[in-house]
Amino acid sequence: MFYHVKHLQYHAKPERPDPVYAKKLQEILGGQFGEISVALQYLFQGWNTRGDGKYRDLLMDTGTEELAHVEMLATMIARLLDGAPVGDQEAAAKNPVIGAVLGGMNPQHAIVSGLGAMPADSVGNRWTADYIIASGNLLADFRMNLTAESQGRLQAVRLYEMTTDPGVRDMLSFLIARDRMHQNQWYAAICELEEKENIVVPSTFPTHLEKQEVAHTFFNLSEGHESSTGRWASGPSMDSLSEFTYVAEPGAFGRIPRLRPAPPYIHNTPIVDKPHVPPMF
Amino acid sequence: MFYHVKHLQYHAKPERPDPVYAKKLQEILGGQFGEISVALQYLFQGWNTRGDGKYRDLLMDTGTEELAHVEMLATMIARLLDGAPVGDQEAAAKNPVIGAVLGGMNPQHAIVSGLGAMPADSVGNRWTADYIIASGNLLADFRMNLTAESQGRLQAVRLYEMTTDPGVRDMLSFLIARDRMHQNQWYAAICELEEKENIVVPSTFPTHLEKQEVAHTFFNLSEGHESSTGRWASGPSMDSLSEFTYVAEPGAFGRIPRLRPAPPYIHNTPIVDKPHVPPMF
Amino acid sequence: MFYHVKHLQYHAKPERPDPVYAKKLQEILGGQFGEISVALQYLFQGWNTRGDGKYRDLLMDTGTEELAHVEMLATMIARLLDGAPVGDQEAAAKNPVIGAVLGGMNPQHAIVSGLGAMPADSVGNRWTADYIIASGNLLADFRMNLTAESQGRLQAVRLYEMTTDPGVRDMLSFLIARDRMHQNQWYAAICELEEKENIVVPSTFPTHLEKQEVAHTFFNLSEGHESSTGRWASGPSMDSLSEFTYVAEPGAFGRIPRLRPAPPYIHNTPIVDKPHVPPMF
Amino acid sequence: MFYHVKHLQYHAKPERPDPVYAKKLQEILGGQFGEISVALQYLFQGWNTRGDGKYRDLLMDTGTEELAHVEMLATMIARLLDGAPVGDQEAAAKNPVIGAVLGGMNPQHAIVSGLGAMPADSVGNRWTADYIIASGNLLADFRMNLTAESQGRLQAVRLYEMTTDPGVRDMLSFLIARDRMHQNQWYAAICELEEKENIVVPSTFPTHLEKQEVAHTFFNLSEGHESSTGRWASGPSMDSLSEFTYVAEPGAFGRIPRLRPAPPYIHNTPIVDKPHVPPMF
Amino acid sequence: MFYHVKHLQYHAKPERPDPVYAKKLQEILGGQFGEISVALQYLFQGWNTRGDGKYRDLLMDTGTEELAHVEMLATMIARLLDGAPVGDQEAAAKNPVIGAVLGGMNPQHAIVSGLGAMPADSVGNRWTADYIIASGNLLADFRMNLTAESQGRLQAVRLYEMTTDPGVRDMLSFLIARDRMHQNQWYAAICELEEKENIVVPSTFPTHLEKQEVAHTFFNLSEGHESSTGRWASGPSMDSLSEFTYVAEPGAFGRIPRLRPAPPYIHNTPIVDKPHVPPMF
Amino acid sequence: MFYHVKHLQYHAKPERPDPVYAKKLQEILGGQFGEISVALQYLFQGWNTRGDGKYRDLLMDTGTEELAHVEMLATMIARLLDGAPVGDQEAAAKNPVIGAVLGGMNPQHAIVSGLGAMPADSVGNRWTADYIIASGNLLADFRMNLTAESQGRLQAVRLYEMTTDPGVRDMLSFLIARDRMHQNQWYAAICELEEKENIVVPSTFPTHLEKQEVAHTFFNLSEGHESSTGRWASGPSMDSLSEFTYVAEPGAFGRIPRLRPAPPYIHNTPIVDKPHVPPMF
Repeated sequence: MFYHVKHLQYHAKPERPDPVYAKKLQEILGGQFGEISVALQYLFQGWNTRGDGKYRDLLMDTGTEELAHVEMLATMIARLLDGAPVGDQEAAAKNPVIGAVLGGMNPQHAIVSGLGAMPADSVGNRWTADYIIASGNLLADFRMNLTAESQGRLQAVRLYEMTTDPGVRDMLSFLIARDRMHQNQWYAAICELEEKENIVVPSTFPTHLEKQEVAHTFFNLSEGHESSTGRWASGPSMDSLSEFTYVAEPGAFGRIPRLRPAPPYIHNTPIVDKPHVPPMF
Repeated sequence: MFYHVKHLQYHAKPERPDPVYAKKLQEILGGQFGEISVALQYLFQGWNTRGDGKYRDLLMDTGTEELAHVEMLATMIARLLDGAPVGDQEAAAKNPVIGAVLGGMNPQHAIVSGLGAMPADSVGNRWTADYIIASGNLLADFRMNLTAESQGRLQAVRLYEMTTDPGVRDMLSFLIARDRMHQNQWYAAICELEEKENIVVPSTFPTHLEKQEVAHTFFNLSEGHESSTGRWASGPSMDSLSEFTYVAEPGAFGRIPRLRPAPPYIHNTPIVDKPHVPPMF
Repeated sequence: MFYHVKHLQYHAKPERPDPVYAKKLQEILGGQFGEISVALQYLFQGWNTRGDGKYRDLLMDTGTEELAHVEMLATMIARLLDGAPVGDQEAAAKNPVIGAVLGGMNPQHAIVSGLGAMPADSVGNRWTADYIIASGNLLADFRMNLTAESQGRLQAVRLYEMTTDPGVRDMLSFLIARDRMHQNQWYAAICELEEKENIVVPSTFPTHLEKQEVAHTFFNLSEGHESSTGRWASGPSMDSLSEFTYVAEPGAFGRIPRLRPAPPYIHNTPIVDKPHVPPMF
Repeated sequence: MFYHVKHLQYHAKPERPDPVYAKKLQEILGGQFGEISVALQYLFQGWNTRGDGKYRDLLMDTGTEELAHVEMLATMIARLLDGAPVGDQEAAAKNPVIGAVLGGMNPQHAIVSGLGAMPADSVGNRWTADYIIASGNLLADFRMNLTAESQGRLQAVRLYEMTTDPGVRDMLSFLIARDRMHQNQWYAAICELEEKENIVVPSTFPTHLEKQEVAHTFFNLSEGHESSTGRWASGPSMDSLSEFTYVAEPGAFGRIPRLRPAPPYIHNTPIVDKPHVPPMF
Repeated sequence: MFYHVKHLQYHAKPERPDPVYAKKLQEILGGQFGEISVALQYLFQGWNTRGDGKYRDLLMDTGTEELAHVEMLATMIARLLDGAPVGDQEAAAKNPVIGAVLGGMNPQHAIVSGLGAMPADSVGNRWTADYIIASGNLLADFRMNLTAESQGRLQAVRLYEMTTDPGVRDMLSFLIARDRMHQNQWYAAICELEEKENIVVPSTFPTHLEKQEVAHTFFNLSEGHESSTGRWASGPSMDSLSEFTYVAEPGAFGRIPRLRPAPPYIHNTPIVDKPHVPPMF
Repeated sequence: MFYHVKHLQYHAKPERPDPVYAKKLQEILGGQFGEISVALQYLFQGWNTRGDGKYRDLLMDTGTEELAHVEMLATMIARLLDGAPVGDQEAAAKNPVIGAVLGGMNPQHAIVSGLGAMPADSVGNRWTADYIIASGNLLADFRMNLTAESQGRLQAVRLYEMTTDPGVRDMLSFLIARDRMHQNQWYAAICELEEKENIVVPSTFPTHLEKQEVAHTFFNLSEGHESSTGRWASGPSMDSLSEFTYVAEPGAFGRIPRLRPAPPYIHNTPIVDKPHVPPMF
């Protein structure tokens, strides 16, 4: 269970309102790689971890911190929306700055949330659990976590470039630093697991059940051979099990598929002279 | 532009129909980490790559291959649905096997797709681009690609355990091997980029603009200290810029937030004795 | 079944076109608490009502009226879009008013709907039945109806503040009045049901099967004790069954959860020295 | 910011695994009125509250508790999935109990989450922020909260009826009791606000701007007059401003709408002999 | 505006409950091509029609009828769910018929809707306005309407095959007949418009602005020449403007794209020796 | 399987960047009727075609071409975004052109995709497979294909009107011409199938099982008789099976529905004096 303290983990106070920027900042609150995503992703991974110990604790520590980041961003967005104008075009025509604000802000910040933050991204798509994963396999999940922190920090950095407000930048400099730490930590945890398990997820599937002849082969399926110069095209494979090979003109292993007609009760396109279809059971 | 050849990249023929398994197999066709996801993710990343060369080619090669995997799975699913029964409970009551099939198959495979594959997952959620990312930053994106191949291979392996059909297992053994190769290749590409850029994405944001004091610090925000024993809690940070530190009882850096009342035209809860709110402009 | 008459329930004619406002007005047509939501919510509740009588009739009366409101809003939006410009930036640069319109209108009003209303909200999210509920329990559902009319009227009032067009305001003054009536009517119906059933939904679950000791207890799980001053923290409970109590420092009733390892065929993270897991069946 | 303690708020341990019930229990974890919905709804309402004091504290207290309920349900679901079978139809045919489990469980619990809980409902729809609202108007929002606790308790009670497992029922008896308290508390808070503001949301819109003649009128728009017998059809209105009136045969106030043709650059259906359409600007 | 009469447009009474079939029948109520889709699609097209007359009336007539079909299906589904069991696996084990029902019914029919119909499809996806279109161009829209009636009738016919209940089949025989009429009517309306406008939508774009040399050309982009034998590969084009031509080995008209590097403030992958990028403005 | 060649099918180079237009152009890339929709729709229809031959080949040819269109649009959008500004309001205030760009562009083009195209429409809704269908019945599906090409060409033409950039117009003139061809081809294929099967889908359901008396009847369910003047109201039906008839005042065929009360374990609204409900089994 959880306890909440009132102090923010870090300051979240802009120097002045900026409703247009509030719209943009929603991306790292409620977007695909925003703070809601990492908070719920880490918590679900933690709750589903079978086997106590440091990984579960790591997930709960970090998921709990991300809730604080959601809180900081929600607070910052509410303040950026302070006193946002909602007037009509006539008023806007008289004052170009208000006009720009009215044109660029998210209308739902006024109509729906009453100048509050929303669980949505910078164009208004509501947050969805489609964004997250908790698979039960920690190496697979930590890779998603490293991805989320990478994409999230990238977005925070781009948002940093989009404002000159010292208060906003101060908060972003905190979040960007935390994203550095979180990339570091998932990287460290991944290294630990890769050392134990080899790099390919899942590590527990018997290798001989895979089609060996294509397990370390690069297929050149698009024009041009630039891809042949990469590390993935020759030399020992990263999993140390074989050598990479490069197939310049890969062909098909399978046949031309021919599907059997559907039974009449499906009412697909009627086929003249249809072959005999024996019943399933 | 693309050309299509009729032969499948690999065989996709089950020994016998199995509509219940067809439903499950949809997961790696149209689910969060299914083949549609990787195909469109790699192609969009390739099309958006600014700077020609081996990475764009690598993305186009692999994205094009994934289209072939979509095709193989669609074919396999159509065959698993061959002659699927659609009858009512009465018929089912007379034949427990048909009853089990009717209860376990996806009704849309009969009603909507006419015994064909659908761009949906194993519970019927339609595929959505919420699943994918192409950010313009290749290290961030390759990490997502490695994640997708890890989660996708994990799911393929679990599906392998759920059938004994030799034809299905044969196809899965091919896909599982390709997922091994693809994990290897994104791993190799990631290593190249990390060597050039350091491990933290993006590498181009000036370090001094980050809040240094929290950039390598672990905050213990959940009860218990198991997380202190991990590699992420002490020793040199993975980005080689500092030392990890562990804060056992982290406090707040920020203040208790107090938001200003909304202007009257927003019609939020009326506040008695409300403080003066100067207009925005 | 239904019949349609051509006259609008009320006027829906703006004084002049305003494509930017058309975009905003979409919120109460196709948004979370827009007219499509209340129309379909009331009709589904009506169709599902088991037990004829006044509540079913009430639902059908009101659901049928809401269809007329959808129609009024669709008509108003089409007129606000009359002759909307679609030109490019060059033209816009020459005329700031056109520029403001082009920047602020929803591009789909030109590209997709051809200057017609859309079943979407003010940022373009398509209407979804995620917004509505028909549970079979009328008290639970009437509370949702009262909520929908409250949120909907709030949004209509905010939209009233965003325009000075007399025609738009005239139509909104009708809708805002109807929302007053509808809040009144659901309130009245709720009072009737609460009198019969007590206030807690559902009223038919045996009280002794609930964990009595926490059924009227307030847990203070966030810092600060402001919440202790509310009506919910002391005095007789609203359901008249007990007294409210306030727990200033609530603890846990449960234990630390320890999950059993997953079976090998799930291929979760391998656990060294894993405990014996007996099979399920 | 938040802290996490390891102990569950209440026990979450079934007597035995039941993967089919795990699927159903997802409804109150990740469904429309599940615990994720109330947790995020209350937290967002709390963060957006402008004006400190008891309501913000109330929201933070309760939102923080709901996170503990998400945790309990996630733990319970993981345990209900312990050792869930994943085999094929052949195996199922040999053992009807396994067959029933395989047919009734959510395949994503094996393929996607590796026997863990998912942020999804009982048919697999992922959680979406479409479910929740934080409007800045507390009376409107508390009504949504009362609704959510009513629908949520109703679902919990129905789920109680669907199992005989003492461990599951024990946990549900706790949640059902908490939902009683939460209905009580929102009811109490609503009473306070209604006393101050009158019952119609928002209370701050000048009454004279509403179309008075329809503000307390019931329109009988569906066949039958059962609705005329309700409290909403006669007597003083609930907002004490007027008397309810019942219109047995309501007519239209508006005209037949005639829309102007679209400009040629929209390429709608060409209209022969179209009337002159003056340009917008 | 609308009026509702209590009588159903046609009977909707099954001979006996069948909760499993109720789940399937949801497809034509709330699925992609279900009755909600056609009702709202026709109504929105009608409301957006610019130019009064027979097409607007046609749309309103048919849209209003579809609301009656939604009602019939909702009623039928509620009756199919009459007294549906909700018990647990133990009870199910004792009675295979109940077991089959429990395994095959939609759990939300019990937990969420209380034995009522839902605005969702046969696997539980909620209805979304993503399914429909009203473009302002009637020929384009009537083609969508003909499509919807074709897909809808196909699904109704498949559902007819899935039951032997005389009451259900009776209702379906009505809906299937209406879908025949509706296919006929959209077909008739399409013929009228095509006669006036030629077959290509939109008919108002000047032909000379199209790239003439590819306007009637078939590109053979997949292996095999079966497509060359169709009507579309030779002979006069259907729009009577030219002759179809078949290109057996189509090449590219464009060049290899080379994108310019992103500016530094975007923080994409850093490019060594990047070319000079002049600023945009 | 597929091969990719580097050359674009046609040029995709604007004369100058235009980030605002890039946002709009997303509609025909990732919108409801954009190129992703037709590509995946045709490919899935092709893969599901049971019966080899010209229709499968036709579908694969065209689906493969649409992938090239996705590529062209992605390339064009990336170029329209070249060097897009991301600055704040202050900078914008100094330069009205930059201000207009900042206000009108999609913020995700900077924050999320790093100046790349996205699988989304012009307001940012991510692409979803809700948009497409592959039913197994080719006549039903070809009608959807003709619809998609009609709606898609309409949108491309509207976008042509929205720009004066010669490079963008050149590419659109190619796509508009291809949409002409594709309308022609689906039209031709439809004619072939209609000749064989009659016009009503599906053609294989026995006519006598339909409710004959309503199979060719037009119901006038909305006020006014304009619809009686259409081809669909009199004369031989389009399917040549009967005569159209027009019912000016259609009544109900069914009864007033009365639903049985729900069983107690569902906890719907309690009904006093409820009738006896015999158990289901």
